[in-house]
Amino acid sequence: MAKQKKQPRPKAITPKGFRDYFGAEVTARKQMLDQIAEVYHRYGFDALETAAVETVEALGKFLPDVERPNAGVFAWEEEDSGWVALRYDMTAPLARVFAQHRNDLPTPYRRYAMGPVWRNEKPGPGRFRQFYQCDADTVGTASVAADAEICAMLSDTLEQVGIERGDYIVRVNNRKVLNGVMEVAGVLDPSDPEKFEAERGIVLRAIDKLDRLGETGVRALLGAGRKDASGDFTDGAGLTEAQADVVMGFMAAKRETGALTVARLRELVAGSAVGAEGVDELETIAELLAAQGYASDRIEIDPAVVRGLGYYTGPVYEAELTFEVLDEKGNKRQFGSVAGGGRYDDLVKRFTGQEVPATGVSIGVDRLLAALTAKGRVDTRTAGPVVVTVMDKARMADYQTMVAELRQAGIRAEVYLGNPKNFGNQLKYADNRHSPIAIIQGGDEAVAGVVQIKDLILGAKIAENATLEEWKSRPSQIEVPRDELVAQVQAMLKGQSDDSET
Amino acid sequence: MAKQKKQPRPKAITPKGFRDYFGAEVTARKQMLDQIAEVYHRYGFDALETAAVETVEALGKFLPDVERPNAGVFAWEEEDSGWVALRYDMTAPLARVFAQHRNDLPTPYRRYAMGPVWRNEKPGPGRFRQFYQCDADTVGTASVAADAEICAMLSDTLEQVGIERGDYIVRVNNRKVLNGVMEVAGVLDPSDPEKFEAERGIVLRAIDKLDRLGETGVRALLGAGRKDASGDFTDGAGLTEAQADVVMGFMAAKRETGALTVARLRELVAGSAVGAEGVDELETIAELLAAQGYASDRIEIDPAVVRGLGYYTGPVYEAELTFEVLDEKGNKRQFGSVAGGGRYDDLVKRFTGQEVPATGVSIGVDRLLAALTAKGRVDTRTAGPVVVTVMDKARMADYQTMVAELRQAGIRAEVYLGNPKNFGNQLKYADNRHSPIAIIQGGDEAVAGVVQIKDLILGAKIAENATLEEWKSRPSQIEVPRDELVAQVQAMLKGQSDDSET
Repeated sequence: MAKQKKQPRPKAITPKGFRDYFGAEVTARKQMLDQIAEVYHRYGFDALETAAVETVEALGKFLPDVERPNAGVFAWEEEDSGWVALRYDMTAPLARVFAQHRNDLPTPYRRYAMGPVWRNEKPGPGRFRQFYQCDADTVGTASVAADAEICAMLSDTLEQVGIERGDYIVRVNNRKVLNGVMEVAGVLDPSDPEKFEAERGIVLRAIDKLDRLGETGVRALLGAGRKDASGDFTDGAGLTEAQADVVMGFMAAKRETGALTVARLRELVAGSAVGAEGVDELETIAELLAAQGYASDRIEIDPAVVRGLGYYTGPVYEAELTFEVLDEKGNKRQFGSVAGGGRYDDLVKRFTGQEVPATGVSIGVDRLLAALTAKGRVDTRTAGPVVVTVMDKARMADYQTMVAELRQAGIRAEVYLGNPKNFGNQLKYADNRHSPIAIIQGGDEAVAGVVQIKDLILGAKIAENATLEEWKSRPSQIEVPRDELVAQVQAMLKGQSDDSET
Repeated sequence: MAKQKKQPRPKAITPKGFRDYFGAEVTARKQMLDQIAEVYHRYGFDALETAAVETVEALGKFLPDVERPNAGVFAWEEEDSGWVALRYDMTAPLARVFAQHRNDLPTPYRRYAMGPVWRNEKPGPGRFRQFYQCDADTVGTASVAADAEICAMLSDTLEQVGIERGDYIVRVNNRKVLNGVMEVAGVLDPSDPEKFEAERGIVLRAIDKLDRLGETGVRALLGAGRKDASGDFTDGAGLTEAQADVVMGFMAAKRETGALTVARLRELVAGSAVGAEGVDELETIAELLAAQGYASDRIEIDPAVVRGLGYYTGPVYEAELTFEVLDEKGNKRQFGSVAGGGRYDDLVKRFTGQEVPATGVSIGVDRLLAALTAKGRVDTRTAGPVVVTVMDKARMADYQTMVAELRQAGIRAEVYLGNPKNFGNQLKYADNRHSPIAIIQGGDEAVAGVVQIKDLILGAKIAENATLEEWKSRPSQIEVPRDELVAQVQAMLKGQSDDSET
């Protein structure tokens, strides 16, 4: 009889574009999200948690920046629900929730949401298919006071998580002003809003690339098109020189103060009703923020901010970190954008037919965490546990008792549960765990009623620098009565934490 | 030309079996998870967060209790990763992670994980397709000290989240003892482990149903089979009366103390090597727990605990809440199981071929939260914000300034951002938001430099009970100088919180 063919073993890998997060990677993110939630809560925003899975119908058939149906999402068909998909952002589920529960929710509805979203896009270095977003939105008010509030909250949030004032700037603009400029430039006809739509799309994307392409590159895109370094050609918007001048003038409209910028913008959109409305809104936002003490060192009007997404209809804003970091090539560069958002008035309408004005911000959690790490504001190591070593397997109950006492005193602690035969392995394990202290009690010590407490951090310092007399004068291992175990461990931990502060 | 057919509007609904969580539903769960994580951390467990999506190959093709491939999971095919699925528990991803990263992880590896899991099962009342799990596992040690530790941790965790001692019991058993009993009963042949597998499956499921079916029902299942109230017939294991006696004796083996129970079990498995090993392990666990002070009011040996899952290989444990709640029909019943787990030694072997012993527990987060809510230990309401009302739209900057001051003092506060025309709507909104206080400043008050502070909680009490002189003597609205706004709001909030404590 033929032997049954052995099944190949499954591969222990994640699907492409997914990853695991260990220890401090999890807890540091959690701590940051907690701090953000605290600010959002203080601003009156309520938590909302939707499921990961939505119907494709409710999500809308495409990502904001993607035209193909279902492109960019993880979608599949279920017998009883039809096509469903993993949410690709927090805004589409919010629109569904508000449409579904609007009679039970307060209006305006301020809500925050934090959690993973999924994008079925090509993964790359640092680009994963599951990542965190942290959003706050106000649904059901057209007042730009809601936009101003979110800008203020964004500023407070960044300071709360540890980005110092001066290391960030929240920049505000208004799509209506941009539409006014488009009107003046002759690529928007108020009586036929769909005319020139393709051209305006190219203009929008060109403005968004000012940082990267510079003025010449953007001008090329506004005009005949642009060939990049690799020889690829991108079609331009076909604007005349005079039309392009209007757009370029808009991007360069930022002045010393908000009031001067507003005045300059008012000149630029002269004759456009929507443009004037947009400038009025910016002026109101600036006044509201000034009244609350948010000066231009925190929040400023900047006409170069457009935000890529097509669905914004009014104020747009983004938070940029202004300190420099080294990129992969060792070049200094500004850290860049960590959050953005704006006003979108049409999302709920898809469901109900009624226009529901809304505005909101999304923080790129992973980028913000990377920034905090670069600033040294993140605990990248979890405090290791005190490790109670096992000298005599038969006396496991004694060791467990020690560890129980330590835990009851609030000290992170564990017994070594591997094979205790090789004591060196136990200390290697403690090292791997970043343990601050090891506890040792052999048979003689048990009889004598004592334990050894080994300072692993001091021990490592002495090993690193054997000439450092300061350390040598302090013993890295002490013998204490068994009933002083907890008190002595507490004292040693305190000494270590005092050392690390100096 | 025919008019284009209008697209029907999308339905604002979740897929079947999914739901939204609002406000306190989110924050109460988060608070409970934070408390659990604190205990897990203190016990030396490290956080791990895996992605929601795994390859079907890595997950294994079926849920523990489901025989059909892919039944019970949400799975779909991706071009670049093949078949993938949403995780249905936290254990299968842990096995994958340990197999993948074992060279970089400490051994033993203590890890905790909390987050949603997904089951493609028929939803029902209170049964959703996405729900939270909160697991802790120790991978890489065969020592039953690891099992004892998890039982102790489970006990500490329940007390930490607010289940008082006496309101829960952690019950421990050992699959090896059960196998010994099977051997004695003649339904396990150590030289041919696969023989009688079907019968043992029926016996296991029968024991698991003791609570529900009683002794007679279980006996029927052990023997010829059982017809239930609806007339459905379940096949029995076909045991003789004498064989069934052995199994029933096992379930009734619990004695006054752990030591007596162990002695009784030792009699029952006399002659079975694996049975004796299992009893030894239970004895060790009992000793270790006793040494740490966990008496039988917290953790006890109970032979009736078998845990349904086929993959357990040694100690099994579960936490049961022993207080009574009213069920849907108004009958008192015990709350029942909120956590369970045990030792499983084969999960990592699927990937590496090496046996890696592991043990772990999973807390049913939603059930535990329901229990805490039943005990009144959960904040089911989010503290509402102080609402600054808008008497004059043109003075929005003044109102925003008030709210900014309150927020800077750490007080949850917001400006009313809806249409301010109807003042009654503003107070209705404040009520809907469970606001403790409303701030009012009309034009005259602005000129006079004062604000009105309205105590909405006191106001509601007075409205509820107009004869309550105690309340009437306290004004529910006070006028204070504008620059005392923050201090007076703080004082009023303190008064409210003092009231609610008495």
